[in-house]
Parts: sequence; C-alpha cells; structure tokens
Amino acid sequence: MNKIPVGVLGASGYAGRELCALLAQHPRFALAFATANEQRGQRVRFGRHQISFIASDDAALDEAAIVFCALPHGASLPWVDRARASGARVVDLSSDLRPGNGAAATRAAYVMPELGATVRESIRLADIVANPGCYPTSILLALAPLVAAGLVTPGAMIVANSASGVSGAGNSPKRELLFGEVTEDFRAYGVGNTHRHLKEITATMSALGVDDADIVFTPHLLPIARGILSTITVPVVAELTDATEPMRTMYAGEPFIEVVDEQPRLVDVARRNVVRMTATMILGTRTPTMLVTSAIDNLVKGAAGQALQNANLMCGLNEAEGLPA
Amino acid sequence: MNKIPVGVLGASGYAGRELCALLAQHPRFALAFATANEQRGQRVRFGRHQISFIASDDAALDEAAIVFCALPHGASLPWVDRARASGARVVDLSSDLRPGNGAAATRAAYVMPELGATVRESIRLADIVANPGCYPTSILLALAPLVAAGLVTPGAMIVANSASGVSGAGNSPKRELLFGEVTEDFRAYGVGNTHRHLKEITATMSALGVDDADIVFTPHLLPIARGILSTITVPVVAELTDATEPMRTMYAGEPFIEVVDEQPRLVDVARRNVVRMTATMILGTRTPTMLVTSAIDNLVKGAAGQALQNANLMCGLNEAEGLPA
Amino acid sequence: MNKIPVGVLGASGYAGRELCALLAQHPRFALAFATANEQRGQRVRFGRHQISFIASDDAALDEAAIVFCALPHGASLPWVDRARASGARVVDLSSDLRPGNGAAATRAAYVMPELGATVRESIRLADIVANPGCYPTSILLALAPLVAAGLVTPGAMIVANSASGVSGAGNSPKRELLFGEVTEDFRAYGVGNTHRHLKEITATMSALGVDDADIVFTPHLLPIARGILSTITVPVVAELTDATEPMRTMYAGEPFIEVVDEQPRLVDVARRNVVRMTATMILGTRTPTMLVTSAIDNLVKGAAGQALQNANLMCGLNEAEGLPA
Amino acid sequence: MNKIPVGVLGASGYAGRELCALLAQHPRFALAFATANEQRGQRVRFGRHQISFIASDDAALDEAAIVFCALPHGASLPWVDRARASGARVVDLSSDLRPGNGAAATRAAYVMPELGATVRESIRLADIVANPGCYPTSILLALAPLVAAGLVTPGAMIVANSASGVSGAGNSPKRELLFGEVTEDFRAYGVGNTHRHLKEITATMSALGVDDADIVFTPHLLPIARGILSTITVPVVAELTDATEPMRTMYAGEPFIEVVDEQPRLVDVARRNVVRMTATMILGTRTPTMLVTSAIDNLVKGAAGQALQNANLMCGLNEAEGLPA
Repeated sequence: MNKIPVGVLGASGYAGRELCALLAQHPRFALAFATANEQRGQRVRFGRHQISFIASDDAALDEAAIVFCALPHGASLPWVDRARASGARVVDLSSDLRPGNGAAATRAAYVMPELGATVRESIRLADIVANPGCYPTSILLALAPLVAAGLVTPGAMIVANSASGVSGAGNSPKRELLFGEVTEDFRAYGVGNTHRHLKEITATMSALGVDDADIVFTPHLLPIARGILSTITVPVVAELTDATEPMRTMYAGEPFIEVVDEQPRLVDVARRNVVRMTATMILGTRTPTMLVTSAIDNLVKGAAGQALQNANLMCGLNEAEGLPA
Repeated sequence: MNKIPVGVLGASGYAGRELCALLAQHPRFALAFATANEQRGQRVRFGRHQISFIASDDAALDEAAIVFCALPHGASLPWVDRARASGARVVDLSSDLRPGNGAAATRAAYVMPELGATVRESIRLADIVANPGCYPTSILLALAPLVAAGLVTPGAMIVANSASGVSGAGNSPKRELLFGEVTEDFRAYGVGNTHRHLKEITATMSALGVDDADIVFTPHLLPIARGILSTITVPVVAELTDATEPMRTMYAGEPFIEVVDEQPRLVDVARRNVVRMTATMILGTRTPTMLVTSAIDNLVKGAAGQALQNANLMCGLNEAEGLPA
Repeated sequence: MNKIPVGVLGASGYAGRELCALLAQHPRFALAFATANEQRGQRVRFGRHQISFIASDDAALDEAAIVFCALPHGASLPWVDRARASGARVVDLSSDLRPGNGAAATRAAYVMPELGATVRESIRLADIVANPGCYPTSILLALAPLVAAGLVTPGAMIVANSASGVSGAGNSPKRELLFGEVTEDFRAYGVGNTHRHLKEITATMSALGVDDADIVFTPHLLPIARGILSTITVPVVAELTDATEPMRTMYAGEPFIEVVDEQPRLVDVARRNVVRMTATMILGTRTPTMLVTSAIDNLVKGAAGQALQNANLMCGLNEAEGLPA
Repeated sequence: MNKIPVGVLGASGYAGRELCALLAQHPRFALAFATANEQRGQRVRFGRHQISFIASDDAALDEAAIVFCALPHGASLPWVDRARASGARVVDLSSDLRPGNGAAATRAAYVMPELGATVRESIRLADIVANPGCYPTSILLALAPLVAAGLVTPGAMIVANSASGVSGAGNSPKRELLFGEVTEDFRAYGVGNTHRHLKEITATMSALGVDDADIVFTPHLLPIARGILSTITVPVVAELTDATEPMRTMYAGEPFIEVVDEQPRLVDVARRNVVRMTATMILGTRTPTMLVTSAIDNLVKGAAGQALQNANLMCGLNEAEGLPA
C-alpha cells in the first residue's frame, strides 16, 4: 500500500518533534520533509528513523499531500498560503487560524472531532484545518457533554482553572523556563482572562449554543514536562445522580475519550492521544454545581496527536491510525 | 535572658520536624522535649543542634510552658488534655479543635493573627490555640481584605482551587505518595467539597460576616515538596482600579504578608513564614469578578511557622521572633 | 495466526506492570493471566486493554507457554518450580536464579542476548531464563566490547558508578522513597561493593574471560522515575583513535544497541528497549584509560523489555517483536 | 557596631543572588551596591531587604572594603584590577584567578579554609582571594584527610564522579537547561578530563603533596536545583577499621564539616555552608580501596557561602559569622 507523503514545517519545537515521532510510526503516512531553519542540517533520530532538518524555503511543498504547519504563533499564515498554492492540504497547529482571529479564522475548519458528526465531516472535506489549542481541547471536550445535555445554567459563571507542563511554552530558551526556575514552583499566568486561548473557548462555547456564560480561565505552570489538567466549576440546572452520565452518553464509542470514576491523573494520559475526564456534583452549594476535571497530554491530544487525528480524517483513513491510545 | 521551655508532641512528621528546626534557631524558646513514639531513641540533627526523640508517655509535660501538639488528626484531644492538666498552654496543629468540630472547637482560640487586633488578643490570652490549617490559611488571608472592604457579592459563588506540595500529606509511607507515583503527575482530590478543611473555611467566612456565599474548594496534589498556591475567583460588587488596594490597606505593617503586583510563586515563599498575594480584575465578565492568588509554604506559614507565631503571641514576645521572613 | 498464551506472576510491581503494558501491544503473545495477591480483583487498564489481577494460587500455569515471574527477590524459586511442573517455560525477573546464587543459578540460562551467538542459542533452548538485572545490563553491555577486543588492562581496577531512577526500588510503600524524601536529593547506597548485583557483574566478567579485575560498583538514587546511567572508568592496554570502535564492531546490526558520539541521556532511552552507549579516551592519565557511559530504561531493557526479548527468542519469534525501539 | 561596607559585582546570576541573600542576613556586613548590567534598575527582594541592581560602571568601588566579584568566567580580571585600584580587597568567585591559570593565579590566595592553619592565615592576609570552585570544594575537602594521613597509594588512579544540580550552570537562557530538557534526565558532561575544574583539583592535590596520582574527574547534570554529590574511589595503602577516622581527626572542631556514618544526602546540606562526608572500605578488592562521598550545596559552600566565609576571615571576623550551618 503506497504511503501518503506529508511534510512538517517547524519540526524542531516540542509539538513539531512530537509530530515527527508519531509520523515515524504511522503506517500510512511517510515524512517527505521536516523543516527547522535554525537547526537545518541537523540529523535527528525518531525511534529507528533518522531525518535531517531542512530550511523551510527548501521544502518541496508540492510533494506533500498534507503539510503540518507547526511554526510559532504569528508565523503561520504565509506558509499556509504557500502550501495551499502548492496544492497541499494543511493542518495548522498555531493559533493564527483559530476562532477569534477575524477573517483568517473563516478559512479553516476548527474543532475537536469528538464534538460530533458534523464537525468530523467538516474536517474530512477541509483544505485547511486549524488544530485546536491544548487548553481549549482539555476544557471544551469536558464541557461539551453538559452543553449537549442542556445542563449549563443560563448566565452561569464557569470557572476553568488549568495547569500545564512546561512543554506548552515551547523550547525557545527563556530564563523563566530554566529548570532552576521551574522546579519546586507553581504559579498562575495569563490571569484575568488575558490568555490567548480564551477566544477559542468562548467562540466554541457560543457555537455550541452557550453564549451567555461568563467564562473565567486561569492557566498555571506546572513543574512537569507534559500534561494539562483542567478543573472546571459549572453551575447546572439539575442535580444528577451520576454526574458522568452526560459524558458517557455523548462519547460512547469514541476511541480517544476515557470517562472514568476516579480523578484523572496526568501520568495516565502521558504520550497518549486521549482525554480522560470525570464529573462530580459539589456538596453543599445552594444551587446545583458540578466539578468537571479532564487530563490530556498537551503535546499529543493537545497538539501533534490531534493534528494527526485530523489528518487521518482528511485522508479518509481510520481516525485512530497510528495514534497511541 | 532565660529561655522559655517548650515541647513538641509528634516531632517526626513533616510539620513536627519543621517546628523543631525553627525552635533550634529561636532566640527565646528552648526545646525541652520532642516525642516520636515509633522513632524514639533516634537522634536527629537540626542545624547545629541534635535532639533525641522520646516516647510521648515519657514527655515531662509539666516542664514546658508551651506544648506544641503535632500529632495526627484524631489523636490530639487526649494529649491536649494531659498537657493542660500539667499546666502547659497548648498550640495544637491538628484539625481536631478547629471550627467545625462541635464542642471541641469551643475550647480553643482559632484564626490567623493577621485577621485583626481582636484575634491577636484572643491568641495572647488563650490556653489552647487551634493552629489554622494550611489550605484555610492560604485562602482566608487572601479573601479577608475583600470581606473587610464589603466587596464580596452577596450570595456569590467563590471558587477556590488550591494546589499543594506532597509534604501536606505527611510522611507516613503510602504507595500513592511514592516518588514514582507523584513525579510528572498532577491531580485533584477531595473534590466536590469533601475535604476536611472546608469546614474551617466556611466557619471563618461566616465569623467574618459572609455566610451566604457558596464556596467551592478543590485541592490538588503538586509534584513538589512544599508550598500551596490558591487561585480564587470571587464575584465582587465593584470594579476596582487597583484590585490589590484592599489587601494593602488591611495588611499595612503586617510582617508576614506580602502584597505584590506580579503573580506570587511558590519559590518566593519557600521556608518563609509569609503569605504572598495579589488580586486582579477579570476582563470581560458581565458582573465584576476578581481573581485572587496567594502562595504560602504549607509547612511554615501553613503549619509550624504559624504555630510559633501564635506561641510568640501567647508568651508576650515579639510576634516575629525567630521566624524566617 | 494463533497467539501464544503467556502469564505474569507478580504483575502489580513496576516491572510487572511494564511487562503487562508491553504484552498488551505484542502481536504474538496473549496475556492469559496476571497475578497480584494483595490487589487481586483489581481491574487495571493497559492501553486499550483491561485486565483483572488474580491471586497467584489461581493462575492456570498449565495454560501458559511462557510464565514471566516478576515476584520479589527471594520469592521466585517455588513459583519457578510450579510453572515448570505445569509444563511452562519461565523467564524469571528476580535475582534468585542469577549467577552468584549457587546451585539455583545453574538451572537457568543467563545473560543479555547481545553478548553473542552462543548466548542467544542458550536462551532459545532454555526452559528457564534468569533475566539479567538492570545495573548489570547497563554495565556489562558497555564493557563487553572492550573485553572482546582484549583491551581491558590485566589486573585493572574498573570503577562503575551507576545512578538509577526510583522505580528500580519497586512500589512497596517505604518512607525513604516518598516524593518528599527523594525530590531535590541524590545519594549513594549499597556502597563498598555491597549491592546484590555485584555478583552478576563479576561472574559475567569472569565468564567473558576477565577474572583478575577489581570491580568497584557504586549505585546511586536519582530523583526521576526511570532510567539508569552507568559511568565506567576502565584502564586499557592501548590508546584508541576512536574509542567507540570496539562497540560499533561488536554490536553492528544489533537492533537494541545504539552506539553514539555524544553522551547518552536518560530521556533518549525512556520507554525503549535499548542501550545507548559511548566511549572516550581520558586525557592526561599516565596509562591509557577509557570512560564508558551507557543509558537504559531500567524497567524496559533493564527488566520487562529484556524479558520479552528473551521470550521472543525462546519462542522462535523475531527477537524485536513487539518491543519499543 | 559599625557595619563593614561590601559590594557585589554580577549580582543577578545564581551565585550573586545567593550572596546578596546571605549578606542581607549578615550581622557585620552591609551591602553597598549590587551590579547587574542587563537588569540594572530592577528591584529585587532578599528576605526583608530590597535592593536595586546598578550597572557595574556605576558601582562605588572605593566605598567597599570587600568587593565580591561574581562575574562570568573570563570577565573577572579587569574588575578585580579596578576594585584593587579603588582600595578594595576582592573575593573573586570566577575561575579566572584559580590554580591552572598561569600568572593570574599567582595574584590570589586560593583554597578552602578547612585545609589548615596556613591556608587560613594566607586568606586573612590576602588582598585577593580566588574562591574555590564547587566541584573542587566537594572533592578536595573529602580527599585531604586521606592525603594528610599518608593513605593515598602512590601512583594511584583516583576516580571522582560528581553530580551537580543545574544552578551550577548559571541562569543564562540555554535550551539544554530548560526544565523540559532536564527533568527526568541525567547525563555526564565534560568527560575525559576536559572540565575546567580539573586544573584546580590536580594543582591542589599537588600542593598537598600528591603529584603522582592519575585523577579522573567526570561531572554529571542532575535534575535538581542545587547540590553536588561526589563519589570518589581511592586506592589506599592500608585497610582501616574505621574509614572515617582520618576525616574526624583532621576536621575536629571545624564548624562547616560534618563527618557522618551514613551516606550524605543533598537534602541534608541544602542552603547550608557545610560539607557532609563519609568514607567506607570497599569489599573484595585485592588491594585496599576506599570509597569517599561528600555532599555540598554548590551555591553555598560551593560558591557564595564559602566566599562569605573567606570575607569573614579577611576582615578578622568570626569565620562562621552570618553563615547558615
């Protein structure tokens, strides 16, 4: 069976490397090129495979059926255009084409496949997919079942606290990301609803039919390499006997969603393309309120794995092909 | 100047050891005994001092002016009684005498000194002080200025997410606290308002005049040794230009409170008897909402340091005597 | 193609769990049972598979072609006998049948497959394989090429310093392995040639023809979950231009050996069944001396992966079948 | 009592910051200035003190009795000259004036005070002290008692393996020191006797009378913030009943040396100006061989603390003044 040629732009960042590692084991995709301007010429080993990084300008875009664009936020658009002009379809991992970016966002299909059949169809047909952000993936997939079940209290304040491993901040050298600055520490950042990902979250909630909620999103930096845990407090219209029931209903048969009874842990999802989640009714509040928690690997289901999942859909392959679950 | 003799019951746990280490450097207290039944006979070095653990039954309670009781939750009451019968005053670090424990709680003075002059006076005069819990210390000292300023929206839902280093769980051997189980992980626990500390928080908020709020408290386990960060979302009645102003007003001159502009980090408070905190207005919510964050060392300001601070007050010493700030 | 039924005794330890996880993805082996007396009845998920632990006494030993025995050191022998009596062949992961255990050791084939064709043949034919220890694997595979090339100075003192992640110490609850006791720490243990693994090392060196060397072996405990790095100083009879040449010669074509130019890192071998190694001539010593370093994942190439590699050989499968490289 | 004015050049690195923090608590020194060119103007808090970094060119060198020079290696010499020309005495923390640097090294007193009365006297009188490196401090103080006792076998190969926390590499942003690159990793570097510190070690051993030994020094990078453990194998001329006896004899009464029976741990020396060490005879070698291990905090006894210890001596103060032991 012939393999489908694909390319990676921006292969030296954490997401780009993860993507190359996953592609090295994918049974149907073959890596045609991987670019990294500053590290061009460098040979990198992924499992049993070795590749050499090339400059982006040297990439044979027209030889790839799918181009994964893992360039830094703000640098994607011209390369998406060049890839499209070369005839390739694109999965863009930056935030540049996601909801909240005005006109640019209208060019791309967006949203996690697990949000439903319509979404999956839009991804299958898309020439450009804006791969969802890591925080939005962890939060939206956990909230969607409550929305689908009509449980979210109108006008509610939804409080989403997330904590991410440092790979979410990339591997450009910055003092505040040195080991000595992160170990034994924990802190919030992007507080007060100033984080870039909030736009994706609110736009998607609105698309799902919830546009009157106040969403408060506070990310934190964890002293670990990878993983995001989101802890979400949601006022709901009814007290459920089994708070996980809406999740189990909506995600029955989904290969990459694990609804569990115990609290999800980051070690349970590391290096896997899954979201593990649960829900609990909160005791003692005067109106029913639910606590929803979800765990993902930010580099896999939050970036490279979901990008591959989307590419599988675009190419008519089994959605789970080559993905670690 | 004669030193005041004090004793420590339960000196082999993390809080007990921290207390012994602080006492070894205290200019006015002298450690008369330190008990640890399972490790009796063991010699332990604290800085330049060495002490030998003895059995609790062998402690000369009557020779101590202050007995610090750092026994496990549930084991304190009989020892508090024995110490009192011997004429010693007691600082109890367990939760057994804190608010929410019925009659037992009425026997002890409770609450952080920084909550005001009345509180300080009650500690000075108390024969028994129930030392506040680590999570309540981090949450209540951050919320109190908003309460004092009349800012908390009546009937509001206050969402407090806290994350603690593993020393908060003690040093009894448990599989889920092994290094291999905690490193590279993060998870919630005590979800749905089931954590023991919630009672202290709601009781104290009520004492401060807020008894109509819905408080949601969710603790998490961090892969670090020490520190608690609390991230608290609070609906407020007014949009402030400087959200930290109520904190600066209430805590002016307090030696152990640091109101800062940037986000507090755990490394900034490690091994220090301080609370570092800040506040921010949240953008884009329809009603004014504030994000309050606070950082403490759970073993110092959250346990042993605050116990010593209380003992300083009880003995008429400078409240900051011998405490690392 | 029919799958070969295999069983795991002692499946709840770190090595046992790793083995179950690898077996869940193995294309030719099927897990017939997994035992864990204390946790019997517990359901555990490995990737997409779920298994239920049973008591060892309930294991249908006669239904397994291969029984992996991952019981604690000292508990293996009776179960090896029971498995053999049931007709199963055995891969034993404990140290009980390894060299240095007197008569017991004569019953089992021992040694890493990469040590040569004779060894591989002995494993293929063996009814019982004593799977090598993690430290010996990392040290012996790094030294063997120097021995094979006749480079080790007669009567030399070989100094092997190794550092291991905590999973090497198992997951039984012990205070000294709590997260709070291991993080930010590093220390030697088993010093003065008192570690159990030394016997395997000296016996194998002797079998390789080096029985006049003084070997000094000092293990250390690293604050990480998995991985062993060994740093070995070896006096040699000649100054080599390329110190890695003996390794490249001996291991040409080996799927699980990676000879590299840069220093091997633990992150490069995590979750992979490989040994990564290099060698360097030491400057300025009066007689030629070589520094050899090797990295393995102690749970994979140091335990479960190598056990599977041996089982592949015993069953006439491709040696690399189902192993992450 | 008037305080003695001192200044710090290069105060924003890890050693410089540690020094400022220690000076903030020193009873006899007052910090006159702290320079950090890139971060000039920045206000930094050390305990209860706040200081503002200034540019080095703006430092009032002539107002300081002692100038601590914590500039990067290679940048010290001109500033040492400027400080001397201004009349200040200098403690230089770089390697530029240490043994092995030709003429420059002859200008400064070098070596740890604990090496003896002559050394202490040379420090007291010196205008310039070259503060010893972190690795040499941990290795030389552990070896010196064996040398003093005439125990080191003539012509022996001494193998020193050391492992350091990342703060030893400074806080300049480098990709290989990012949290995501260091966590869960361990590796050797500077292998084959290529590390800069080897010169200090061999020169000092020679000064102590051992100039025929082959010293092999291999540093490693630990995933922790601070601390160095050195594990040293030394052939000796006699089998000792108590291998620690030479240490206890040489260091009796030393405030900063802790000779212990158990293996030293890094957590036991963190934030303290001490070396903790032990020694053990190695079993089973044909000629007597000793294993010596030592632990220090690389930022305290390995840098800032020892610098302050030297400054105390230079100013005729109690050597232990203001130092955490």
